[in-house]
Amino acid sequence: MKFKLEVTDPKSKARAGMLTTAHGEIETPIFMPVGTAGSVKAVHQRELSDDIHAQIILGNTYHLYLRPGLDVLEKAGGLHKFNGWGKPILTDSGGYQVFSLANNRKLTEEGAIFKSHIDGSKHVFSPEGVMDIQRIIGADIIMAFDECPPYPCDYEYARKSMELTHRWLQRCIDRFDSTKGKYGYEQTLFPIVQGSVFKDLRKQSAEFVASCERDGNAIGGLSVGEPAEMMYEMTEMVTDILPKDKPRYLMGVGTPANILEAIALGVDMFDCVMPTRNARNGMLFTSEGIINIRNEKWKEDFSPIDPYINSYVSTFYSKAYLRHLVISKEILAAQIASIHNLSFYLWLVGQAREQIKIGKYADWKNLMVEKVSRRL
Amino acid sequence: MKFKLEVTDPKSKARAGMLTTAHGEIETPIFMPVGTAGSVKAVHQRELSDDIHAQIILGNTYHLYLRPGLDVLEKAGGLHKFNGWGKPILTDSGGYQVFSLANNRKLTEEGAIFKSHIDGSKHVFSPEGVMDIQRIIGADIIMAFDECPPYPCDYEYARKSMELTHRWLQRCIDRFDSTKGKYGYEQTLFPIVQGSVFKDLRKQSAEFVASCERDGNAIGGLSVGEPAEMMYEMTEMVTDILPKDKPRYLMGVGTPANILEAIALGVDMFDCVMPTRNARNGMLFTSEGIINIRNEKWKEDFSPIDPYINSYVSTFYSKAYLRHLVISKEILAAQIASIHNLSFYLWLVGQAREQIKIGKYADWKNLMVEKVSRRL
Ligand SMILES: [Zn+2]
Ligand SMILES: [Zn+2]
Repeated sequence: MKFKLEVTDPKSKARAGMLTTAHGEIETPIFMPVGTAGSVKAVHQRELSDDIHAQIILGNTYHLYLRPGLDVLEKAGGLHKFNGWGKPILTDSGGYQVFSLANNRKLTEEGAIFKSHIDGSKHVFSPEGVMDIQRIIGADIIMAFDECPPYPCDYEYARKSMELTHRWLQRCIDRFDSTKGKYGYEQTLFPIVQGSVFKDLRKQSAEFVASCERDGNAIGGLSVGEPAEMMYEMTEMVTDILPKDKPRYLMGVGTPANILEAIALGVDMFDCVMPTRNARNGMLFTSEGIINIRNEKWKEDFSPIDPYINSYVSTFYSKAYLRHLVISKEILAAQIASIHNLSFYLWLVGQAREQIKIGKYADWKNLMVEKVSRRL
Repeated sequence: MKFKLEVTDPKSKARAGMLTTAHGEIETPIFMPVGTAGSVKAVHQRELSDDIHAQIILGNTYHLYLRPGLDVLEKAGGLHKFNGWGKPILTDSGGYQVFSLANNRKLTEEGAIFKSHIDGSKHVFSPEGVMDIQRIIGADIIMAFDECPPYPCDYEYARKSMELTHRWLQRCIDRFDSTKGKYGYEQTLFPIVQGSVFKDLRKQSAEFVASCERDGNAIGGLSVGEPAEMMYEMTEMVTDILPKDKPRYLMGVGTPANILEAIALGVDMFDCVMPTRNARNGMLFTSEGIINIRNEKWKEDFSPIDPYINSYVSTFYSKAYLRHLVISKEILAAQIASIHNLSFYLWLVGQAREQIKIGKYADWKNLMVEKVSRRL
């Protein structure tokens, strides 16, 4: 994998770059739609590329491992062949989902023992095992197995968790570097910075991760309930340490404003379930602000959902029609809102990239953060 | 509205024709996807036209009247403008849904008093009111208000119900002919033949309906639980009486085999929720037979859903991937299966039309009925 840093904004730390993978190029900053079980919920693969203009999507190792399972994925020739998405894919390590199972998992030095949320069956995820699983899924970018501590957590927990994550990272790297991709194309491994909201831990973790000299680096354990200002502070500390010539991925972030702020701090890649999950609840992100489409005020508004967003659904369907579908619990509501929100997110990072390239990101960002956070 | 009878099959009563409405032409025999609340469930309007090749869709008066309501529909300029479907639309009269409300409706000579399934509010549907409602919805083809007796029902019930339906039909016609379309284009009214499974009633009803000399005629009260042979017998009795130069619509039918058999009896138009409802349960109609995609046997079948059906989903997605989505309860499963099943239904009536045009329908039908009824 190659990363070419193209432009850095003069008044912020925002960067525009180009990431080249075996399944194509990715223009950064980029937002990655989440395709949990090999499907971005309510969205066809054709819509992902032609309407949303997604350049890379995310898959969840935990979900894919349980269903359809590694046998099916390997026989299909990997996730790209299985779901027909020929562009880049990133998989998480499954750690986050496993640790969310609360009473149904046990953490040891070796890894995590957990019970499937589907049938209660017992499974083990170890750093080595998770590398092997992601080799079989065949993602272009695979993530290290880490522990994401909850927020808030005390300093001692955060320190021990970070140290475990570092030991696991070394095991991930050893396994990854001694194995090969299953399907003949290159995969790459991103390590993850942890350390909760403690500056010295974040610094220590970022330095350790930087020292691993991988093709790209991720920042985990943020957007888990801490105040936004704290998230930005931690992010900036970390991006100041991570190598400039490698892409930086801020995991699980976030709102449109979060993304614009984090871009200004030097982050290149994002993922979040918010655009699709909120879409299913009738919340729309638009170029003019946030809409709760269930609201009575949209009942007779026959204007398009968002004329500035270049996707079929945003300009073809009216607010009144979408509201009717949401109220009537029609499946099409989730489809329209999901495509629109994802199109908006991709439009937003695309606009950010243009502004970085013309050296005007910082000022544009301040205006846009206000605009996209407004409730209509 | 104009109907041109193009060809009649030499060895059956099958016909190929062309129906011309204010919103475009319809090649018959035709299947009409059901868009209950102004949306064909899980299908985008673009997919309806470009993938499914639908030429006309159906809307349900009962549902549209309750949600979004007549105010919204009238302000939008009718259903075509509201949902963006610019091709022909047919609406039912709402009678069928109202009479399904069982304990929440009361039938009188005047019409039906019923309670909304949504909020329990009280409403009245009368023959005149239902004409006015369908004028506001703006469908190209609107249906008379009828009572659809259950199966089985005794002769006396069926006779009285048919007589009520006839009196209501006269009131529908009087109201329809003394009013105009709201949006400047022509609408047309189809009367409905009733009479349950009693030959003399069906004959009497068909003769009454024929005598009304409308642009097209419908056959109701079938496919409500009676044996298929009885449905075919009633259908044939009725098509033998209805005028040859008008389209005939067999309401709520049916399986692919039902449709092929009814085409052979001289039916031109069909609607049914089966392709979409069964899709949502993982049942696929294909050119090789019926598939229950949940079945283990499709788990590692990476072949396309149906290579003979000319829609994106049928050739792009594999059976194994669709099975995975169904098992994982992903929304995309409903989307893929619905588009595929509707594409199959439209493909089937299109093939039927081709066979009628070359005078080989009867033999082809016998082969196809067997093929499409097979369980794979
Ligand atoms: Zn998130
Ligand atoms: Zn039906």
